[in-house]
Amino acid sequence: MNMMAFEFGDHLIVVDCGVIFPDAELPGVDVVIPDISFLRENQGHLRAIILTHGHEDHIGALPYVLDEVDAPVYGTPFTLALARSRLEDHGMADSVDLREMRPSAPFELGPFRIEFIHLTHSIIDAGALAITTPVGTVIHTGDFKLDPTPTDRRVSDLHTLADYGRKGVLALFSDSTNVERAGMTPSERGVSERLSEVMAETRGRVVISCFSTSLHRMQIVADLAREHGRRLCFIGRSMFRNSEIALEMGRLHVEPGLLVQPQDARKLPPREVALVVAGSQGEPMSAMARIAVDRHRWISVEPGDNVVLSSRVIPGNEKAIFRMIDHFYRRGAHVHYDDGSHPPVHVSGHGSAEELRLMLNLVRPKYFVPVHGEYRQLSRHLELAKELAAVSGEAFLLESGDVLEFDAQGARRNGRVTVGRVCIDVGTLDEVGDAILSERRRISAEGIVIPIIAINKYTGMLESAPEIVSRGFVPLDEAEDVVEKARELIRDTLEKSNSEERGDWGVVKDKIRSALRRFFDQELGKRPMVLPVILEV
Amino acid sequence: MNMMAFEFGDHLIVVDCGVIFPDAELPGVDVVIPDISFLRENQGHLRAIILTHGHEDHIGALPYVLDEVDAPVYGTPFTLALARSRLEDHGMADSVDLREMRPSAPFELGPFRIEFIHLTHSIIDAGALAITTPVGTVIHTGDFKLDPTPTDRRVSDLHTLADYGRKGVLALFSDSTNVERAGMTPSERGVSERLSEVMAETRGRVVISCFSTSLHRMQIVADLAREHGRRLCFIGRSMFRNSEIALEMGRLHVEPGLLVQPQDARKLPPREVALVVAGSQGEPMSAMARIAVDRHRWISVEPGDNVVLSSRVIPGNEKAIFRMIDHFYRRGAHVHYDDGSHPPVHVSGHGSAEELRLMLNLVRPKYFVPVHGEYRQLSRHLELAKELAAVSGEAFLLESGDVLEFDAQGARRNGRVTVGRVCIDVGTLDEVGDAILSERRRISAEGIVIPIIAINKYTGMLESAPEIVSRGFVPLDEAEDVVEKARELIRDTLEKSNSEERGDWGVVKDKIRSALRRFFDQELGKRPMVLPVILEV
Repeated sequence: MNMMAFEFGDHLIVVDCGVIFPDAELPGVDVVIPDISFLRENQGHLRAIILTHGHEDHIGALPYVLDEVDAPVYGTPFTLALARSRLEDHGMADSVDLREMRPSAPFELGPFRIEFIHLTHSIIDAGALAITTPVGTVIHTGDFKLDPTPTDRRVSDLHTLADYGRKGVLALFSDSTNVERAGMTPSERGVSERLSEVMAETRGRVVISCFSTSLHRMQIVADLAREHGRRLCFIGRSMFRNSEIALEMGRLHVEPGLLVQPQDARKLPPREVALVVAGSQGEPMSAMARIAVDRHRWISVEPGDNVVLSSRVIPGNEKAIFRMIDHFYRRGAHVHYDDGSHPPVHVSGHGSAEELRLMLNLVRPKYFVPVHGEYRQLSRHLELAKELAAVSGEAFLLESGDVLEFDAQGARRNGRVTVGRVCIDVGTLDEVGDAILSERRRISAEGIVIPIIAINKYTGMLESAPEIVSRGFVPLDEAEDVVEKARELIRDTLEKSNSEERGDWGVVKDKIRSALRRFFDQELGKRPMVLPVILEV
Repeated sequence: MNMMAFEFGDHLIVVDCGVIFPDAELPGVDVVIPDISFLRENQGHLRAIILTHGHEDHIGALPYVLDEVDAPVYGTPFTLALARSRLEDHGMADSVDLREMRPSAPFELGPFRIEFIHLTHSIIDAGALAITTPVGTVIHTGDFKLDPTPTDRRVSDLHTLADYGRKGVLALFSDSTNVERAGMTPSERGVSERLSEVMAETRGRVVISCFSTSLHRMQIVADLAREHGRRLCFIGRSMFRNSEIALEMGRLHVEPGLLVQPQDARKLPPREVALVVAGSQGEPMSAMARIAVDRHRWISVEPGDNVVLSSRVIPGNEKAIFRMIDHFYRRGAHVHYDDGSHPPVHVSGHGSAEELRLMLNLVRPKYFVPVHGEYRQLSRHLELAKELAAVSGEAFLLESGDVLEFDAQGARRNGRVTVGRVCIDVGTLDEVGDAILSERRRISAEGIVIPIIAINKYTGMLESAPEIVSRGFVPLDEAEDVVEKARELIRDTLEKSNSEERGDWGVVKDKIRSALRRFFDQELGKRPMVLPVILEV
């Protein structure tokens, strides 16, 4: 959920607007977006949302955020194309003001002068922002690596960074993701060797999965497919769509006639096909997951085929990914994935320690703030910076919501603003509140028991035996004695309530709830959610 | 859940009896044990359970299994000590017949002659079983690596494996866990270098966490603590208990006076302390997790301390582990964990490809069956074996439940027996059924709605307005119109039921359930569990 606000006077700009995808700890939640209370409160000051690149964790919250606040969105052409496609899904493409920005073409937003500086990453058209204000220039790197040989031959613009460094930079906000890795991250081209080997050795299909925004990866596969006499086919909604966007924009180069449609790919001899398929994380409805279990409309695998997961195994997805890999093996295919073997099938998009040192030494800011990473990574990045002579002033370890204030006197922490996560059920675009999530987690841990009591509203007496239903709890139909005892307990609790208590069914419910809780704990060692219902009849 | 049965005539022996620990996919489940229907049905034939080593995934199900079937349990002294301690937790230590077995001391069980062959692993006293039957000898490796320099100086007994190999082995069942890793797994001593560096450089406490069965690791820390002038302290229930067991058995060697109790460790200057703490996986109630958030009775960390997680990051535990690491960083401690850096803080207990090749070449069996691993690993192990000349007959890729039959004519698959998982709620030792788990998962995904209808048992008419309660669903108190429409829908459904349907409330409930489901889906885009309750009053 990358999102950072820069404020000067009553002018506010926001850098990035990302989502994260939740795990099992958030049942029924499809996507998590940032809490934008601060933006809502300062809506009048918001001048722009500026995107550093087109990954979901930097642009995915746009439809939700722009539903609540209004601002033009700046991005490079490819980033905007992805943002537009995301907005189209929500029927919002026409109502949002998307503005192109380009490297070395600074523009002004109130007191801010913004320059986009091209840097390499796993996606094309990514970069840093140099934001010049009356108190100095801050540089926000976005996500970056310093790839010496990107497939689009557009290397990182070290010269502009150096210029800013020479002129003097107030503060650097720099990507910390891979601070724990020594050396340099390999070039995106680093996967070519292994992919080429696989293309050459495989007598059947080659099925390659990567993130559907990995344009470098898609270009490499396109080039290798041609070289190895295989037709190229993009499969899966996001993969197909992004390849179309990139082809149209001239950012993906595929030789005429090389590309085939999925429905035609199946008619070709397996030896003549290279497929690029969405779903590298084993997402249950993805094309990859469906191919793995032979449920894809056009594509299946068989012995002799080779599958390559040219992507990271994102923590939390291991089970789904390895289950999918096993399914491919059961069908006789061999699977290559990011298991540490060399040459690699995947390289990271984030710079390692040496690249982070180079960034610090080029920019040599007065103040330094590590961003993009968990606390341990920010902390290590801080340690790394302290070993250099690059930072002349102070380094700050900030957590989400912390405010850092700069003025002529220097920089200092200045309180916090409201931040947090908002859980979204995509089917409905509804927010899933913390209370609901906590109810779901409680019920999923021990089940729910619902005692139902019909009370005569005139006499205050039971109208029938209490009913007890449950779900996710011990099967009550096999525990007739427990149910009978629970019924007695409810009767007792009612009888022992005085008339005042009976005047307030809330009190009676509480008494029944705690009596039953104690009873289930003692009798069964269980603590289900108990939800008494009193019906006046 | 390692468990393999060997049967000859009406004699049955079982190798290992393990558990696995579930993830969020099994809410409210504490431990998963094997379904032992097959053992229950063949109880009369069961001669013994034989343990290859003392890890939880090989011994953890003993208390549950021995509660249902009766058999003597064979193991090496240290393995039995751990098994005994596990059985004591369940008050079963006195009722189980634990029998010591030792390397090079074969014993007979009916038609089986069993020889335990010592092999190295991350736990001491581990090994393979050579099981000689009238149709030949099968060798089951258990978990192993071929560590040339184990801390207890007891190297793997390659000579006995070679002897069997020379005499002829019918079948080899071999550990596949690390088949994907090239080369040799580093020795357990491989962590000494890094741990020694940390002990030397740290001006505060050194807090090391490892699995509480990692005797090699515990010995290394004990030796280094002495060397670096630090007192040694074991913290956490399992760590303390296992160190006591190992000390008593003379399998852990700690210089007199080096060991201190936790309550005394806190009185020493931090520079003079090395702590070995349970909870390397960030288990919420573990000593490590409590120290990380300053909730441990005796131990806390502060700037200058160094924390080492000398263990694997088990998939599924990343979130808990990295959250714990962040907490240590927030307290100013530096954390070393298994992030691929060198020298390593952790080494695997399982042999890599070269060790697996060596095992195959030594044993050179007629038949080969890869075990211990997911399908992809078994499949890779099969491929690896095919590249060697070691296996003269066939290799079989078996999945849990497959039966492999050997006789004078050879080997062949012969159907399947019942296998599966049984989910246990440890608080109660109850089995958590699949139906209950699926209810919990459904409720946790979309919540539960309970419409309650009081019906006059004489007239069949509604006695009051239908009540609707929910949990984990949209807050109904904020959706009065939805609730009102749902009530109307219930009334309609009841009115439209004919008298026959009203004679069977099951039918009416079904009609209400499907009407409400459709309604919530259309109105809110949600599919909660709907659980109608009809109360006759």
